[in-house]
Amino acid sequence: MTHYPDAILKLISSFSTLPGIGRKTAERLALHLLHAPDHEASALAADIIELKRSVRICATCFSLSDQEICRICADPSRDPGVICVVENPADLAAIEKSRSFTGCYHVLGGALSPIDGIGPDDIRLKELFNRADPRKVREIIIATRTNVEGEATAAYIHERLKSRGVTLTRIASGVPMGGDLQYVDPLTLQKAMEKRYDV
Amino acid sequence: MTHYPDAILKLISSFSTLPGIGRKTAERLALHLLHAPDHEASALAADIIELKRSVRICATCFSLSDQEICRICADPSRDPGVICVVENPADLAAIEKSRSFTGCYHVLGGALSPIDGIGPDDIRLKELFNRADPRKVREIIIATRTNVEGEATAAYIHERLKSRGVTLTRIASGVPMGGDLQYVDPLTLQKAMEKRYDV
Repeated sequence: MTHYPDAILKLISSFSTLPGIGRKTAERLALHLLHAPDHEASALAADIIELKRSVRICATCFSLSDQEICRICADPSRDPGVICVVENPADLAAIEKSRSFTGCYHVLGGALSPIDGIGPDDIRLKELFNRADPRKVREIIIATRTNVEGEATAAYIHERLKSRGVTLTRIASGVPMGGDLQYVDPLTLQKAMEKRYDV
Repeated sequence: MTHYPDAILKLISSFSTLPGIGRKTAERLALHLLHAPDHEASALAADIIELKRSVRICATCFSLSDQEICRICADPSRDPGVICVVENPADLAAIEKSRSFTGCYHVLGGALSPIDGIGPDDIRLKELFNRADPRKVREIIIATRTNVEGEATAAYIHERLKSRGVTLTRIASGVPMGGDLQYVDPLTLQKAMEKRYDV
C-alpha cells in the first residue's frame, strides 16, 4: 500500500482497529473523509475527543452519563422502586429502545466468569446489594444475558438477595417474536417449552 | 436514544455519515471507543485531522500525495513512458495491489457523464492531452471503468489522441479469474467471447 501517502495509511490503520472494520472498509472510510468537506472530518475528530472527555459513570446506577447522576436516575417519571440489572450500557440501550420498562437500572459492568478471572468483586455486585433496600426497592429484575456467564450471575444475585424481602424476577427466555421455529436453537426451544404458559 | 449522554449521540451521528456505517454500527463503534484506551481514541482523531491537513494532489499525475510530486512519479524505477489512465485514486490503488504495472499514472478524477453534468472540462482530460507527447510517452493504457461512463471516457480519449503517434490500449474485459461462469453477467460473457484469443 505504499502508493498512498502516510497520512492516509495511518488513518486506515487507526480505522482498522475498530470492531467490524476490516482493511478494505477502513480504506473506503479514509478516502471518503479525504473528499468530505473539512468541517465534516473535523466534527468527527472533535466528537471522538469530546466523547473521551465528557462521558462518565452515573454515581447511582453506573450507566453512561454526562452528569453526576444519569438522565434516567434523575428523571422523576421513572420508578426508583424497580431496578433492572443489566451487564452493560449496550444492554440498557436495547431495553430502553423496547420502551418496555419505566423503572431504573443497575449496570454491573460485566458478568461473573471464573475462566476469565472475573469474580464478584470485579463487577458492581456489592453496589447492587447496597441498593437492594426493601424500604426503597420493591422489585429487582435480573436482565443479565442468557449465556453461561449471565445465568451464573443471575443465580449468584438470586442466592445473595433471596432473603432480603425484595421481589426478584428474571426476564423471560423463549422463541423470539416473529421467529421461525426452524431457525431457533435447541436450547432456546427447550426453554420455551419448559416456560410454556396457559392461554 | 435519550438514554445516552450527548457526547455519545453526537459521535454516533458523525459515524453514521460515513459510507456503509448504519446507526447500529455507529453505536457499536462509539461504545468501543468509549472503552478503548485514551491514546487509541486520540490517535484516531489526530489521524483524521492530519489526513485533511497533509494530503494533496500530485502535480504530475493528480493522484494522492504528501509531496509536490507523488511517490510513484518520483520513483526512478517506474517507467514514465507508459501512462495508465484511471478514474480515481482507489482504482490506482487496485492496480498497484495487483503488482501488474510498472509505469506511471494519470488520475482523471471522474468520468464523462453528461447526465450528471460532467463534461470534458470537469475532469483532468486537458492535462492528459498535454502529457501525451510522443517524444516522452510511448503508450497510454486507458483503464477507466467498464461501465457506460468509463467506456464513454475511453472512447473520447481514443478519439482525441488516436492521431498523436502514441500507442493507445484499453485494459481487457472478460470473465474474472477463478470465476464460475454461471455467476458472470451476460454482458461480461459477451465481451469475453468477442475478445477470445488463440491459445
